[in-house]
Amino acid sequence: MSSTVGQIIRCKAAVAWEAGKPLVMEEVEVAPPQKMEVRLKILYTSLCHTDVYFWEAKGQNPVFPRILGHEAAGIVESVGEGVTEVAPGDHVLPVFTGECKDCAHCKSEESNMCSLLRINTDRGVMIQDGESRFSINGKPIYHFVGTSTFSEYTVVHVGCVAKINPLAPLDKVCVLSCGISTGLGATLNVAKPTKGSSVAIFGLGAVGLAAAEGARIAGASRIIGVDLNASRFELAKKFGVTEFVNPKDYSKPVQEVIAEMTDGGVDRSVECTGHIDAMISAFECVHDGWGVAVLVGVPHKEAVFKTHPMNLLNERTLKGTFFGNYKPRSDLPCVVEKYMNKELELDKFITHKLPFAEINKAFDLMLKGEGLRCIIKMED
Amino acid sequence: MSSTVGQIIRCKAAVAWEAGKPLVMEEVEVAPPQKMEVRLKILYTSLCHTDVYFWEAKGQNPVFPRILGHEAAGIVESVGEGVTEVAPGDHVLPVFTGECKDCAHCKSEESNMCSLLRINTDRGVMIQDGESRFSINGKPIYHFVGTSTFSEYTVVHVGCVAKINPLAPLDKVCVLSCGISTGLGATLNVAKPTKGSSVAIFGLGAVGLAAAEGARIAGASRIIGVDLNASRFELAKKFGVTEFVNPKDYSKPVQEVIAEMTDGGVDRSVECTGHIDAMISAFECVHDGWGVAVLVGVPHKEAVFKTHPMNLLNERTLKGTFFGNYKPRSDLPCVVEKYMNKELELDKFITHKLPFAEINKAFDLMLKGEGLRCIIKMED
Repeated sequence: MSSTVGQIIRCKAAVAWEAGKPLVMEEVEVAPPQKMEVRLKILYTSLCHTDVYFWEAKGQNPVFPRILGHEAAGIVESVGEGVTEVAPGDHVLPVFTGECKDCAHCKSEESNMCSLLRINTDRGVMIQDGESRFSINGKPIYHFVGTSTFSEYTVVHVGCVAKINPLAPLDKVCVLSCGISTGLGATLNVAKPTKGSSVAIFGLGAVGLAAAEGARIAGASRIIGVDLNASRFELAKKFGVTEFVNPKDYSKPVQEVIAEMTDGGVDRSVECTGHIDAMISAFECVHDGWGVAVLVGVPHKEAVFKTHPMNLLNERTLKGTFFGNYKPRSDLPCVVEKYMNKELELDKFITHKLPFAEINKAFDLMLKGEGLRCIIKMED
Repeated sequence: MSSTVGQIIRCKAAVAWEAGKPLVMEEVEVAPPQKMEVRLKILYTSLCHTDVYFWEAKGQNPVFPRILGHEAAGIVESVGEGVTEVAPGDHVLPVFTGECKDCAHCKSEESNMCSLLRINTDRGVMIQDGESRFSINGKPIYHFVGTSTFSEYTVVHVGCVAKINPLAPLDKVCVLSCGISTGLGATLNVAKPTKGSSVAIFGLGAVGLAAAEGARIAGASRIIGVDLNASRFELAKKFGVTEFVNPKDYSKPVQEVIAEMTDGGVDRSVECTGHIDAMISAFECVHDGWGVAVLVGVPHKEAVFKTHPMNLLNERTLKGTFFGNYKPRSDLPCVVEKYMNKELELDKFITHKLPFAEINKAFDLMLKGEGLRCIIKMED
């Protein structure tokens, strides 16, 4: 047993002291895990747009000082009372949303929106006691979506921890704990294209390309990428995208362009931008009779989805998904196996690597829209 | 072989000479069936709202003089060139929409919106030659949705004819050729509630009650009927409706009322009114994580469906259906079997019976909202 069990751990963490200001590397104190909690040693973390949104905190509830980070992989250091599913030494992915296995959502085969552990971006404390496990000189530093992976050690509810194959390379599979699984699952679990079908993907960032990867795995024969940024098209080919549409190149709505390209519409579409116009186009570009559109991107608070109801009555389906409909604990281990058996390709999502000390550079890369995923190695 | 084969048949038909005026019983000439057509002797027809809409022709393209009627049952009198699937003497249901078995929709397992024979309310002629098979003194009388069952004999494309069990009572199963199958299929084929689940039905007319019948057959434990007309509630109990909500009784939106009744929302909803506000309520009243809303009612041309996209992203599904997703030729014979083996109850939908000579009384009943289905017997 590790000598740190039951003790406060002092370690490095990148603290966001205020909105939009560079993170500061600090020594923080990480308290032992309480009932149903797990303390993790984070080995690798990556950066996702959601970290940037809540760091910028534009229109968001500002919660500072805070340790951001939610896409990561690590090893269990110690467990709190009542934890039986994982043990010290287990390889795990922390996840920003959880699975209590006891609520109506967890008991439903169709939902992954756990009532107890569903993502909460405003909460900066653990649900067990309403306290933070992080502090500096006795002053609390807030958590972020229950994960706070920009720290060498973190404390997470056991329902937000997926135990994975110990042979899986953590510097690769860490990207599965948020964006890549979100896009992949949107296609494989929700849109469910059949072999030989056509799929339109709106937005060719990491989530959209993961949706394309799902379409490639499903055997779609046409994968049409839609993006306003033409520079993304070359990279997208690696993800199975066969055709490109830039809405700026046309005077007519993009749904009409796609309908003309596909004799009436695509079989499936996946919307990964969160822009309301793209959502409407993604719905209206699917074929009548059987088309299914899946919304992934998170919209502006005031956005309104509008369409003529005949578009629905003509047997189109409109669905939304959260985290690709994966139940974190039950399903993520299987996604890791897809990578291990070479069905799923992850390496192509990883465009940059940085040491933890240079984490602010990863923020710069994301703000500039450069690359897809930057892996941050916690230990030098 | 009948002596009428290849001959013009003179028979009685109820002709709509102009919009909104009582039908007039006339002697019409019914030409022999052409290539891929079937001439039917209609034994029973019932009346559906769609007949009334196109008879009133308010905001519709007026096509007169016309023989209305599309919910019916009959016997094949003779067949045209190329018809092999049915033969004289077969018991059949004519259907207002068809199944060519050759187009992309017919080949798709998911669609019943045949490209060749999909409902066309403006067309008053046969697709084979653009002519009518009905005439009076040589002047053509137009067809209606390819069926025109308000006539003792009619000519229908073979793709719009479902061959059924000859033991099935035609005075009962005639109601399956439109409204009842539409509601039933919306629940059984599209909403697919599981045993023990909750289902909200918006609109307790014949289609909505057929949707409730589907929920009863599926084993739903709570079937919540929503209607502005409180007088419908008593009858609805016969169809398995367990609870009633009249939106007029509440100051808050009905979706909120239903969410409170069901700890967050129903598992499934089926919208059968076509009113845009009811469509939005039907969508927003389903539970996040797994709720599915199915739209059946046909909306006003200018209606716009509006909702906040987070309602979708929280894993709700919105679908529309046409004719309950039944493929007319492939699936209707199985629906008739459901009645024959007593799984499906039809008798309770039949509230009135009239002889053909009194067909205008059936219009009066429907305009007054009295009863569900009126069966019109063609022969005295």
